[in-house]
Amino acid sequence: MNTFLLKKEIEHFFQEDMQFGDISADTIFPKDILGNGIIMSKSNGVFSGEAVIETAFQLLDPNIKVILHKKDGESVQSGEIIAEVTGPIRALLTGERTVLNIIQRMSGIATKTREAVQRLQSDKTRICDTRKTTPGFRLFEKYAVTCGGGYNHRQSVNDGVMIKDNHIAFCGSITEAVARTKAQVGPMVKIEVETETIDQVKEAVHAKADIIMFDNRTAEEIAEFQQYVPDTIMTEASGGITLDNLHTYQNSGVDYISLGFLTYGAHALDLSMHVKGGNK
Amino acid sequence: MNTFLLKKEIEHFFQEDMQFGDISADTIFPKDILGNGIIMSKSNGVFSGEAVIETAFQLLDPNIKVILHKKDGESVQSGEIIAEVTGPIRALLTGERTVLNIIQRMSGIATKTREAVQRLQSDKTRICDTRKTTPGFRLFEKYAVTCGGGYNHRQSVNDGVMIKDNHIAFCGSITEAVARTKAQVGPMVKIEVETETIDQVKEAVHAKADIIMFDNRTAEEIAEFQQYVPDTIMTEASGGITLDNLHTYQNSGVDYISLGFLTYGAHALDLSMHVKGGNK
Amino acid sequence: MNTFLLKKEIEHFFQEDMQFGDISADTIFPKDILGNGIIMSKSNGVFSGEAVIETAFQLLDPNIKVILHKKDGESVQSGEIIAEVTGPIRALLTGERTVLNIIQRMSGIATKTREAVQRLQSDKTRICDTRKTTPGFRLFEKYAVTCGGGYNHRQSVNDGVMIKDNHIAFCGSITEAVARTKAQVGPMVKIEVETETIDQVKEAVHAKADIIMFDNRTAEEIAEFQQYVPDTIMTEASGGITLDNLHTYQNSGVDYISLGFLTYGAHALDLSMHVKGGNK
Amino acid sequence: MNTFLLKKEIEHFFQEDMQFGDISADTIFPKDILGNGIIMSKSNGVFSGEAVIETAFQLLDPNIKVILHKKDGESVQSGEIIAEVTGPIRALLTGERTVLNIIQRMSGIATKTREAVQRLQSDKTRICDTRKTTPGFRLFEKYAVTCGGGYNHRQSVNDGVMIKDNHIAFCGSITEAVARTKAQVGPMVKIEVETETIDQVKEAVHAKADIIMFDNRTAEEIAEFQQYVPDTIMTEASGGITLDNLHTYQNSGVDYISLGFLTYGAHALDLSMHVKGGNK
Amino acid sequence: MNTFLLKKEIEHFFQEDMQFGDISADTIFPKDILGNGIIMSKSNGVFSGEAVIETAFQLLDPNIKVILHKKDGESVQSGEIIAEVTGPIRALLTGERTVLNIIQRMSGIATKTREAVQRLQSDKTRICDTRKTTPGFRLFEKYAVTCGGGYNHRQSVNDGVMIKDNHIAFCGSITEAVARTKAQVGPMVKIEVETETIDQVKEAVHAKADIIMFDNRTAEEIAEFQQYVPDTIMTEASGGITLDNLHTYQNSGVDYISLGFLTYGAHALDLSMHVKGGNK
Amino acid sequence: MNTFLLKKEIEHFFQEDMQFGDISADTIFPKDILGNGIIMSKSNGVFSGEAVIETAFQLLDPNIKVILHKKDGESVQSGEIIAEVTGPIRALLTGERTVLNIIQRMSGIATKTREAVQRLQSDKTRICDTRKTTPGFRLFEKYAVTCGGGYNHRQSVNDGVMIKDNHIAFCGSITEAVARTKAQVGPMVKIEVETETIDQVKEAVHAKADIIMFDNRTAEEIAEFQQYVPDTIMTEASGGITLDNLHTYQNSGVDYISLGFLTYGAHALDLSMHVKGGNK
Repeated sequence: MNTFLLKKEIEHFFQEDMQFGDISADTIFPKDILGNGIIMSKSNGVFSGEAVIETAFQLLDPNIKVILHKKDGESVQSGEIIAEVTGPIRALLTGERTVLNIIQRMSGIATKTREAVQRLQSDKTRICDTRKTTPGFRLFEKYAVTCGGGYNHRQSVNDGVMIKDNHIAFCGSITEAVARTKAQVGPMVKIEVETETIDQVKEAVHAKADIIMFDNRTAEEIAEFQQYVPDTIMTEASGGITLDNLHTYQNSGVDYISLGFLTYGAHALDLSMHVKGGNK
Repeated sequence: MNTFLLKKEIEHFFQEDMQFGDISADTIFPKDILGNGIIMSKSNGVFSGEAVIETAFQLLDPNIKVILHKKDGESVQSGEIIAEVTGPIRALLTGERTVLNIIQRMSGIATKTREAVQRLQSDKTRICDTRKTTPGFRLFEKYAVTCGGGYNHRQSVNDGVMIKDNHIAFCGSITEAVARTKAQVGPMVKIEVETETIDQVKEAVHAKADIIMFDNRTAEEIAEFQQYVPDTIMTEASGGITLDNLHTYQNSGVDYISLGFLTYGAHALDLSMHVKGGNK
Repeated sequence: MNTFLLKKEIEHFFQEDMQFGDISADTIFPKDILGNGIIMSKSNGVFSGEAVIETAFQLLDPNIKVILHKKDGESVQSGEIIAEVTGPIRALLTGERTVLNIIQRMSGIATKTREAVQRLQSDKTRICDTRKTTPGFRLFEKYAVTCGGGYNHRQSVNDGVMIKDNHIAFCGSITEAVARTKAQVGPMVKIEVETETIDQVKEAVHAKADIIMFDNRTAEEIAEFQQYVPDTIMTEASGGITLDNLHTYQNSGVDYISLGFLTYGAHALDLSMHVKGGNK
Repeated sequence: MNTFLLKKEIEHFFQEDMQFGDISADTIFPKDILGNGIIMSKSNGVFSGEAVIETAFQLLDPNIKVILHKKDGESVQSGEIIAEVTGPIRALLTGERTVLNIIQRMSGIATKTREAVQRLQSDKTRICDTRKTTPGFRLFEKYAVTCGGGYNHRQSVNDGVMIKDNHIAFCGSITEAVARTKAQVGPMVKIEVETETIDQVKEAVHAKADIIMFDNRTAEEIAEFQQYVPDTIMTEASGGITLDNLHTYQNSGVDYISLGFLTYGAHALDLSMHVKGGNK
Repeated sequence: MNTFLLKKEIEHFFQEDMQFGDISADTIFPKDILGNGIIMSKSNGVFSGEAVIETAFQLLDPNIKVILHKKDGESVQSGEIIAEVTGPIRALLTGERTVLNIIQRMSGIATKTREAVQRLQSDKTRICDTRKTTPGFRLFEKYAVTCGGGYNHRQSVNDGVMIKDNHIAFCGSITEAVARTKAQVGPMVKIEVETETIDQVKEAVHAKADIIMFDNRTAEEIAEFQQYVPDTIMTEASGGITLDNLHTYQNSGVDYISLGFLTYGAHALDLSMHVKGGNK
Repeated sequence: MNTFLLKKEIEHFFQEDMQFGDISADTIFPKDILGNGIIMSKSNGVFSGEAVIETAFQLLDPNIKVILHKKDGESVQSGEIIAEVTGPIRALLTGERTVLNIIQRMSGIATKTREAVQRLQSDKTRICDTRKTTPGFRLFEKYAVTCGGGYNHRQSVNDGVMIKDNHIAFCGSITEAVARTKAQVGPMVKIEVETETIDQVKEAVHAKADIIMFDNRTAEEIAEFQQYVPDTIMTEASGGITLDNLHTYQNSGVDYISLGFLTYGAHALDLSMHVKGGNK
């Protein structure tokens, strides 16, 4: 994660949680008391958030030292230590909740993504995310997906073109919609077309879409659709795919399976931070 | 929800999703084409997000009209319409994903909260949230909890004092920790003390804490602890409480049960928006 | 003071005072010239602003060293040195006015608060502030009150409930207003009710308000009202109380006296900064 | 006041006072209840803040109507109505404190400035302010000075050059300091030089300073100094001037008297807002 | 242009130009004086900036009416009227310079782009921009390129992958660099590879780059290189191409020619605004 | 340049260019790989941007070291090294484009200004800029003008009064317009009047304008006008002056010649950055 960007985001989060400071920590502890905190996992999963721990605490106090025991994408077992944080105890306590709120969600998403990847068990097909992220938190969620072995679809709405049913309806055909788009966008923009039938797939191929999405199709349908798509065009399956039926897509041949639930359906991983302290 | 605050937050979210605009919508649709969108539910739950729909689309285009069919806190069934949105189609499409990302999460939290309230089935005991919210999204998550029938615990870390094990350890006793805090905070600040044993409860009562939290206690323990707490002191149960065992706390007599999973464990409610358009 | 929050605020203040830089300092002094500045008091009072001096100058130049001779809340006499600041002279001169503007106001408020505390001479009754602060400057003003020995009332309008005449009028009674509020707010929110008569006080007690405010009452009235309020309910006197009549409230028994003039009526303490320099 | 700038500032102030909304107003009043508020004066003074009242309430709710009874710079007597505000009562109550906090300070400064102008009673000499303003609130304080009949000195540190003792000491002489500055600044920048003796005044005249400041001089000294200054150079008296001795400067001939206390020593004018309401 | 985004950017620009307001306009004109302004061209070129004129003036005063005589991308001749703006004269004068500063630069870029397109005279090859834009002004510059008939290359550094000499050197080969990238990026990201020789082109084709850039190659070299690239891979020529030699690339067969000078080498188009006024 | 202000601006620029990070650099290079970059000139000109290089890269990574070989205002020849930058290669690559975008434009303006100064060849008359800067980039452009030997006219619209034709028309005369302004502005504000005829010049002198601008006048006219202006009033020539006819103004006697093209007509200086790396 880019630490410059990370700082800007985390500054915003700290301002949300403590507009006027942390009255519990500041009331109990004099400002020069030191402490240390152990961040550990209380369940099994995949960790994501190295740079968050380092960056967040040092924003509150540059004297805080962080020792990481786990790397992004590494598995954690319940009871394992993720990081040790040492420094002024006020800053440790003030930052604790926000840091946990971030890394628990990131690790939850990494865990969910890893599970999806393992359920799929495919060398060819990749798992990717969607724009169905929590507003204001996308940088973290998108990164967490990659820690779990997934891939990022569009970062934002200006990152690529998605031609959906309403665009097609307005233009009259996939052919026209793609042509209209190609007439306007530059070389780095990919054009993806949503399809539901073989005819639509053929039309999208003919129109030279960069990616063809199979919308709400079964693994069998996709395997069939896939035959009409040349190697130079990427394919994506989307809609109706769950952890339970993911394995059925193993040999569908599709390039990507996009799963909105990676970001909106992941449970936060149960992490805790124990802070102790008392000496100068 | 306060619309002034809402605008500021949603502006931030839109900037996250479209730094340079929506190339799909802007490429396909000329700027004066009108459209309409139907936001509907694809599952059963509790809706939350009235003001979000109105405020968000009007930020993108003041000419957009919103007709709401559901109110915050109202139950929705799969297939029911939540709102109709009419206006320039570019703005409808550009706003669609961000609005859904917000209201799906809010409705998910409202739904989870409603479920907790119904599982508990208590006239006395209330369900409340924690600070375990998604960073940058707290305003929405805290409000959603109230739509489901829950209550808000601290909005932020400067909203009240929580005296936990590490504060107590540093001060030497609950008595000393409360005294030190009382010596410093003003009249509007409540002091909550975490306890695990009857002796701690008695000490907290004696120290005149405003709220006593029973940390990770069973319903039976709580019912016992509760006897030592006078009416003028609020109590809260926290830790180890799930949807499955919530009913056991029905008659524990505790005032509040705080549930972190309301915000970090809720699934987004499945909502969709269908946009159609094409005429000026 | 939380230095993370402090930085954010002071950045904003510097941007106000020097959108394009300090043309006086930058024109006269080459950038590597060092200097030192002595901040001293030109009148008697109570100092507040340690962290401001350190944080502000280091924002302009991380090489600046600050030696503090006074602590927050310490008395200063005219002629006493508060701090010495050493480093690049441009940054010393550029920061001088903004730093003085902040700490003079903070020290003025600390001084005024100390005076109120001393006039009152009460072991039981505390002095507290209000929300009548300078917009954009509350973090500093609220902290300064504590340096003078006062306490903070609400930090912001979402920090607690104040039930005033117009709320009561709309609800029909104090009883109803408190009940309606209690039905909606969570465990960490205190409810304060404004009262003017014994009947209102009794009603507020009966309604289980957390705090009862005696609005514009004399010390005698308050002493009487106080008898109807149990120990578990805090009381506050507000309105019509001046430095001159504060001593009459000494034995009124009220818990808090809130004084708007602590923040809107304090004179800036006369502090100055003498900067000298010229060597590399 | 420029309403575009005003909005940006007031948005910031509202965010300070209600990070998560106004729980008192929102708990008691349903969102469509209307009300009206009367802003009136409880003391005599000069009003400043027309545009603030209009802009602030409309930020909270565009449906609010404001009728102003007083104009900026107009005298108000205790008991006189300044403005009537009508609209959704939640927004009236939420905005009340922040609006009063702004206009009370502005009116206090306007009142103090008017008093200074009247004490001076001079056709030639003008009263002006300094940069000794409350950080984050300068736009309002500088404007309020003009409402009282005063003038604005520098808006910010990049608005003009002030050559003070430390600049002179570093350069070796006023002549050299002015020359060095003139060699670097453009046509719209004025150069002001602080002087304490006739020799310094003569040197500053010779160096062609745009403004000469007489630092901590009596009215008699100034009258003498003034003789050495040609009409094309402005003069300013600063330091040691109070409301009590201002009249002695009446015939000193100086162009401006700058008074830091206009902004740091003014009391907020006692204004109140009474809100009533209850109907849809 | 997306008006939501436009507002946010222009707010920032106005704050740059008038931290404390427009003293010329505010001093001369009472606030209710109306005026009108004619924006006209003083040279020949291509206009860009419709939405800027509308949005900018309405930010300063919602009562301002704008009538546009030219559309984005339309040619303008010296002496032609681009827009008429009517409303409070203060706002017209305050906004004049900032609006002209924006639309002159945009129109200059549109004009330069149109010229490049016309010099090239190619049905196949498109002109596109680069990231060599003015920091803080990219939204406007990128849009202006499209008004002149050009295309946008990457909007930002997270919009696509560019594999340059230093990436290749680190990885050891183009093959390895592309493979490493493909292993990490998702379906919407294009990978572009810089090449200088036929061997590199062949390697990039073999590695399945999405785009191959011919770096600093003549039209002849490009025509040769192009033969080794299948239709499914886009090509781009970059470096050493000027308005003077653009025509030589007409039949090179390359898909895009990227020209940094569109944004860093365009002169502002000479536009003026004449404001008249005086009546209420 | 003030580094505090610089940081704030450059943070904004980095956020524009990499909302979600630099996928090229982050994909190819592990985060602890070091590199070094050489910034060199590919053409002849005047360098401006020392502080930008230092500040920008250290924002991305505080471990980056910068060695500067050129100072602001120093001439550079094609092939000369400007700076060496060493540190984590990711940060070098991520910052490269934004840093070049800034310093190329600054150096282009410095170069253009130097050329104007040399064409003019005058000891008396100075070259100055205008407010015709790129919105959002003024801090950099104004500073660059001084690096080339030019001077800054108004930094912003609240920096001084410009009385133009429409102000004069509304007031009825220059005399009245100046008088109205003088009645309102304070001591640090200069008043400049635009004139086109000798009569207007005389009137402006009589009205005691601080600066008189000769609008679109030839060198001969200016030489004549200049005779009517006393030494205590500055003069400025503006309009119709180009690099080609600048020498004709050499002996016109005017104090300043303001040239909008310094900022809107300068070409970016051709600078490049070569980054190499690969070791830890």
